[in-house]
This record gives sequence, C-alpha cells and structure tokens, in this order.
Amino acid sequence: MQNRVCELFNIEYPIIQAGMVWCSGWELASAVSEAGGLGIIGSGSMYPEVLEEHILKCKKATSRPFAVNVPLLYPDIEKLIEVIIRNHIEIVFTSAGNPRAWTTVLKEQDIKVAHVVSSLKFARKAEEAGVDAIVAEGFEAGGHNGREETTTFCLIPLVSDNVSVPVIAAGGIYGGRSMLAAFALGAEAVQVGSRFAVSQESSAHTDYKKRVVDAYEGETILTMKSLTPVRLLRNDFYEQIQAAEREGAPAEKLAEILGKRRAKKGIFEGDLVEGELEIGQVSASIKQIQPAGEIVREIWEEFQQFKAKLVEM
Amino acid sequence: MQNRVCELFNIEYPIIQAGMVWCSGWELASAVSEAGGLGIIGSGSMYPEVLEEHILKCKKATSRPFAVNVPLLYPDIEKLIEVIIRNHIEIVFTSAGNPRAWTTVLKEQDIKVAHVVSSLKFARKAEEAGVDAIVAEGFEAGGHNGREETTTFCLIPLVSDNVSVPVIAAGGIYGGRSMLAAFALGAEAVQVGSRFAVSQESSAHTDYKKRVVDAYEGETILTMKSLTPVRLLRNDFYEQIQAAEREGAPAEKLAEILGKRRAKKGIFEGDLVEGELEIGQVSASIKQIQPAGEIVREIWEEFQQFKAKLVEM
Repeated sequence: MQNRVCELFNIEYPIIQAGMVWCSGWELASAVSEAGGLGIIGSGSMYPEVLEEHILKCKKATSRPFAVNVPLLYPDIEKLIEVIIRNHIEIVFTSAGNPRAWTTVLKEQDIKVAHVVSSLKFARKAEEAGVDAIVAEGFEAGGHNGREETTTFCLIPLVSDNVSVPVIAAGGIYGGRSMLAAFALGAEAVQVGSRFAVSQESSAHTDYKKRVVDAYEGETILTMKSLTPVRLLRNDFYEQIQAAEREGAPAEKLAEILGKRRAKKGIFEGDLVEGELEIGQVSASIKQIQPAGEIVREIWEEFQQFKAKLVEM
Repeated sequence: MQNRVCELFNIEYPIIQAGMVWCSGWELASAVSEAGGLGIIGSGSMYPEVLEEHILKCKKATSRPFAVNVPLLYPDIEKLIEVIIRNHIEIVFTSAGNPRAWTTVLKEQDIKVAHVVSSLKFARKAEEAGVDAIVAEGFEAGGHNGREETTTFCLIPLVSDNVSVPVIAAGGIYGGRSMLAAFALGAEAVQVGSRFAVSQESSAHTDYKKRVVDAYEGETILTMKSLTPVRLLRNDFYEQIQAAEREGAPAEKLAEILGKRRAKKGIFEGDLVEGELEIGQVSASIKQIQPAGEIVREIWEEFQQFKAKLVEM
C-alpha cells in the first residue's frame, strides 16, 4: 500500500504494533517488522541498558524498519534518548507526556517522530511540536488513557479534520474490519495493541495471555481516574482500588495500594489476582494466541476483503 | 440504497433519527421521514394522549413510514402500546428494559420491532425475543447508556458477528464518514441522535441547542453510574451529583438530587445550570443548527463521497 504513513516509515502495510510495557521486546517488534508492518520496542519497562540489548537483537533479527516507544515521563529519559541516538534508531513513538522538549532533539538527528494523544487539544500541541505523525488513541484502548474519555469513533474524525500530519488510529482496532473503519474515519494507519500483547512473540506471561483470550465483553474498565486513568481487566487488585475510591481515599492512598511493579506482576509474572492486567476492550474479540506475523497478514487480508465488500454494497 | 434495513422499514436511506426525550416529536420525525430516512417519535417524555396527538400530526405531515420509540420501563406502558396499536403504527423501537414481554404483543399486530442494546449479551436476548433488528449503541452515545462502557468501535463487530438480524449502529455517528465506518464494522444502518437533537425541528429549547453547538471535546461525561448511567454535558447539576458520589452518597441520596423532570428542565426548558443536558460525545463535532431534512441529505451525500474516496485509496 502507498500512503503517507507507509512512505514516512518505509513499511509495506500501515499496520503498527503498539509499544507495550512487558510485551513488546525485540522478539515481537522484529516479527511485526519482518511481516511488513512496523514493530515497536516498548522501552517503558526497560532500563537503558536493557533497551540497548533489545535494539541490537532486533537489528540482528530484521533488516526492516522498526521503532522505539518512549514514555516521556520515564525518570531516566535522557539515558533512553542517548541509547536511541547512539544506536541510530530511525523512528521514535513518544507517549505519556509533553512532546515539546524531546521532539526537537530527535528531529535534529533525522529521527521520525510520532506522538500518542487522546484528544484534539494534545494533537494540536504535538503538531506544533513538530511531530511527523499523530497516534490518536480512543477510550477503548488498554493501559494508560486520556481523561476526556473520547472514543476512537469520535476522536479520529476530530483529529484528522484538524491536523495536517497523518493520523494513526489506536484503541479498539482488532482486525481488517476495524482497520477499514478507522480509514473511513480519516486515519492513514492503525496501531494495534491488545492483539499483539497476546501474540506468541509477546514477552507477556502465558497465564496473562490466556486470561485475555478468555475475557468477555465488559470485563475491562477504565479505572484509577484520580491517579492516571488506566484500562485493565477486573480482578482482586482492581477491587482493592475500587473499594478505596468508593471510600473517598486520597490520591496518596491509591498510589500506596498501586505500589510499584503491579504491571510487571500481572503481565510479565502472570499474577492474575494481584497484578495490573492492562488490556483493551477488544480483548472480548480476541480468540487465540497467534504468531505476530500471522496477525499482520490476517489484518491486511481482512482489510482488503472488507474493502471489496463495502465497494459492492 | 437496497439493504435489509431499508427493506424492513421501507425507507430510502438507512439513516434513522433516534427517539429522544423532549426532542423528537412529530415535527422532527416527519421531517426525517419526508427526507427519506426513518423518523422516530420518542414517547419517553409523553403522556399517552400526547403521543396520540403526535402520531396523528405526524401522519398528516408525511405519508412515509415513521416509528415510535418506547422505553420499556415507562410506568404506563400498557397505555402507550394501546395508543400505538390503535393508531396502526408499523414500526416500534423499544429501549431501556427487557424486550421479551412486549415484542410478542407487537409482532402479533404485524408491527416491526427494533430493540436498543449496549452489549452482545442483551443483543442475543433481543434476538431470542424475536426482534427484527438490533440497535447497538456505544458508550459515546448521549442519554441513558450501558454499564459495560463498550464503545461503538468494539460493540458493532461483536454484535454483528453474533446475531443474524440486521444491526443498526448508534453512538458517535455524526455524518457520512462515521456512517461509512459503521458499515465497515458490520452495521446496515445508523441511528443518529445528537445531531437531530439540535436540528431546527427538534422540540428542544434553543438555549440547549446553542449550548450543544458550543460544546467542546471532553465536555460530556457518563455519570450517575450508581443509578442509571447517563451521558450529559457537565454543568452545576452534574457537579452536585459528582460531589455526592465522591462523598459516597447512597443511591437514594443521588435519586433525591436528581429529582424529577431534570431532563425536561435542561432540554425542553433550556435551564443550562440546573437541568440534565443529555447529549453524545459527537456534540464536539456539531457546528450548527440545521433543518432535519438537510441533515439526512448531507449524511447520505457524505457517505457516498467517503465511500468513493475509500475505494480509490
């Protein structure tokens, strides 16, 4: 396919695998890139030296373009950026923070920058900061999320009508049908999270992957709104947070319950009771653990099929 | 257009105007039907004799098919149904309640029945009850809403893959672009609420319509989750509910704050401070008060344009 996003990242299909803590290391990123999509190493759960190791392994595994995702609130962000520049990474996706400071630094190194937003307001700020593309992520997406609760259906037209850089749709994208819907709404690419989080090459624990495959509709919820809103599967940990919120606990108390490494416990160590099981609403549609390359090919084929069907209509 | 929904309701375009309290009387319903869509009289805010008056006026204003929406939790529902049958209404949309009891009664009179759901679970129950079509309404929709918080993007494929009757997408549908996206996701028609709520023929107060046109992204919120979840514009009334919920007020206390006729106060009387301003997330995209017929034609033309654009892609 030829469009602005494929040209920008030099990829075959406008299908991007989201950078996800404890899921997207070099195995997942290289598998997606090898299949013609854009794989992303998620550095949010990595020390700078671990990121470097993943970058080197990813380069060995594929000669195709891949990206690194950087959460801008990462405490040691200077070190992450230094690793990225030193290793000649060509594409960076930034999220969770203000893109102003780092976009310039990255662009000076000829790095392509995409930034993840949850509202038109932040999309405009990202464009002003000079990013090359915007990932517009709806309320249905897994993990950290915006306060406006704008859904993909409402967000994509709002953003694509008001910015000039290409828009990548995220949140609720499962297969070729939702990819086609995202394109109808004005997107030029899709970023898929949940389905790749439970792919074979994801670093997540098998128990977490199985739990996601078993998830039914309504089982994920956007919670911790008084801290940072996050979408996850309901479990004991979630109930503790809920109970505290019902009792009107202050943010500090909630932060204490959350503690540290909850996401690692849930996603990487497979603790389904006490862990933070981040995942999107589309988990209700995910029926199996598949190889990442197969997912890319399946989405692309479905996209073509549904497009042909829509034309005939 | 020829598809199952157009044939079922004998309409030109698969564009349905949602039945909405204090908005959709005979003026709005007849204007939409005259333009080739399906207009719906919303009986939720009408006494049975008022409904009858609207039906008679609607029949005078248009010879084309129109429908009546019945909230199944309406206290005097027997009387509403009696008015509907006596006046030979051919299409009924039911919502907010269990479709089992009334679907059979209506079907025995050869009335076409569509039921509004917010989840696959309720969609399956509606199909079992014998409805002819299902309206699948996402989290972004205005007014009363489901507890699962499933968005249109996730809900439509989930429902359309698992029921055999046609699916009408609702929630987040603003124009032809979102209509095309809904069709890509598996819908065969769209139900549009917010945009018709602020059309010229809507019975809503002009101050309410202007307030909706001015609304920006993130201004609506799904609230009153411990009573019945409802999406509305934030205002003083909303802040009172929020404050009570933060203090852990029981459902009875919230019901007391809500009181009676809050929606009438906000929508029909235009009290923007103390009224309940029900509206969907797409309010952020609504830029003007238009005649309802113009809205139908605009959606249909945009749908064709965006479809042609998608084909070229």
